[in-house]
Amino acid sequence: MDKVLLDYGSGGRASHRFVADLFFKHLGNDILARMDDAAVLSLTGPVAMSTDSFVVDPIFFPGGDIGSLAVHGTVNDVAMMGARPLYLTCGFILEEGLPMDDLARIVASMGEAARAARVRIVAGDTKVVPRGAADKIFINTTGIGEIMVDPAPSGHRAAVGDVVLVSGNMGDHGLAILSTRAGLSFDAPVVSDSASLGGLVGKLLAAVPGVHVLRDPTRGGLATTLNEIAGQSNVGIEINEADIPVDPAVAGGCSILGLDPLYLANEGKFLCILPEPQAQAALAVLRADPLGSGAVAIGRVTAEHAGKVAMVTPLGGKRLLGMLEGEQLPRIC
Amino acid sequence: MDKVLLDYGSGGRASHRFVADLFFKHLGNDILARMDDAAVLSLTGPVAMSTDSFVVDPIFFPGGDIGSLAVHGTVNDVAMMGARPLYLTCGFILEEGLPMDDLARIVASMGEAARAARVRIVAGDTKVVPRGAADKIFINTTGIGEIMVDPAPSGHRAAVGDVVLVSGNMGDHGLAILSTRAGLSFDAPVVSDSASLGGLVGKLLAAVPGVHVLRDPTRGGLATTLNEIAGQSNVGIEINEADIPVDPAVAGGCSILGLDPLYLANEGKFLCILPEPQAQAALAVLRADPLGSGAVAIGRVTAEHAGKVAMVTPLGGKRLLGMLEGEQLPRIC
Repeated sequence: MDKVLLDYGSGGRASHRFVADLFFKHLGNDILARMDDAAVLSLTGPVAMSTDSFVVDPIFFPGGDIGSLAVHGTVNDVAMMGARPLYLTCGFILEEGLPMDDLARIVASMGEAARAARVRIVAGDTKVVPRGAADKIFINTTGIGEIMVDPAPSGHRAAVGDVVLVSGNMGDHGLAILSTRAGLSFDAPVVSDSASLGGLVGKLLAAVPGVHVLRDPTRGGLATTLNEIAGQSNVGIEINEADIPVDPAVAGGCSILGLDPLYLANEGKFLCILPEPQAQAALAVLRADPLGSGAVAIGRVTAEHAGKVAMVTPLGGKRLLGMLEGEQLPRIC
Repeated sequence: MDKVLLDYGSGGRASHRFVADLFFKHLGNDILARMDDAAVLSLTGPVAMSTDSFVVDPIFFPGGDIGSLAVHGTVNDVAMMGARPLYLTCGFILEEGLPMDDLARIVASMGEAARAARVRIVAGDTKVVPRGAADKIFINTTGIGEIMVDPAPSGHRAAVGDVVLVSGNMGDHGLAILSTRAGLSFDAPVVSDSASLGGLVGKLLAAVPGVHVLRDPTRGGLATTLNEIAGQSNVGIEINEADIPVDPAVAGGCSILGLDPLYLANEGKFLCILPEPQAQAALAVLRADPLGSGAVAIGRVTAEHAGKVAMVTPLGGKRLLGMLEGEQLPRIC
């Protein structure tokens, strides 16, 4: 068969063959292979659990696809709680008629991303809806992992005097999706940063367990994420515009398109907020890893303007940086 | 606002207001309220984890809606591993333009179902896709619970001589959906059996911990589920057609529509396969609960025709009962 059929979501014989052929081949492991109603997992201590549905359009983009993104996105959310991501579930909603080649490529990419992130896909579900009732493929992933430090990092723990680090350039994923969708090309290629951050977070916490906040600036970008943290911790955050790393190709694309890279989604970067005396040690760990080679300090946590984010411009002015208002870019992830 | 807007999925300010207004109101608890990237949960011992995406059409039907169904379906899958369901995540994919009244009704129904099932919704995600890219609303739920018995029930544990019980009438959910969709009405109302089975499974395992298999016959119905178990355990299963409970209104509707209730989905019933000496005790526990009042023994596990399911007809004939072939009914759950 070269296209997904409604039969494949029936729960009957056609479903079973489809699942066996495609999902077990790429995602299989001894837990998934038991095919019971739920997976049996062994876990100890407090765990972190997170869920995300992926509806990105287009489903293939420079630097990744909806399958690898679905693994990275949830692995990263679990890692941001200071947890070692261990297990994922995946729920597919497929549109009747989706080319089987596309689906196979996506599932293979999920398998590869899961192996690279050292997580196992332990339960899954597939629904097929009639043509027109969904757009090609949507994937939900839910992840769970064991928390490595106590207390766990949290958006509630930013403290006055803390330093704010970012692990690299801002805006790559958002601009890669938008430019692909619009059929735009720039002189230098713009590629999504989609990547699993679990390993890098593990190294960081092993060296610097006292990190206060970890968070990946996905939808809404850096500016929105900083606002969330300022609100949760009831502190001010002040960042220096000149210190925020943005790839020149992304900066150029954004200026052509009238977009602000501080509001664009990232899928392989994170923020780290921690006491000032530990900042250099954290930067050293981050910079030693390819995923954190562009890590820099961009600002600090202040007692002033609690709940808000201020940005100091290169000319020394200061302005408040709000949350994303409205929608900049639907179906970014 | 009376309709869901694309803004609500942006991750920005509109998203935050939307989440606060609707989801926290109906689904809120202290874990969800922390709004970190992942929920921090305390769990002990082996756990069961399951995921399901719900795409049922229509989204409101006699006996429930897509919200309550999304809670029941995943709670039941976790319970079928002999686990006490504790935590759920939910991922919403919303079509731009979905009436807010419909969404509010669905979220309220999820909250009510979660409270009744004593599970907490600890993490969530909302995506909004442009009009036409999805059909109204899809919901993924992923659940986790602590396993209460060792070894856990599993489709691999059916043993020759075991008795097969069902907790009540077969086919109610499937026929309720199909008749609603087709605009059919019967003399007696046909209502989905959608319900959370976690509490009843807890009572059953407390009284009869040696249960071999628990499974809820959802997509593909009783016949497909029995075939799965026969295959996993490499045993035969023989059931008596006359003993299979079917509501007369469902039997009548099926005969008009040319459907077989043994292949219709159930969302509030389960199969229990256990050693013969424990069958009466199990039936007594089931029948004492409104959700199991129709529980009966329908057959037994045999050494003959391993991997297959045979049905003895009222006239004494015997025929093999296959898995569902192809698709009987898309978007049943």
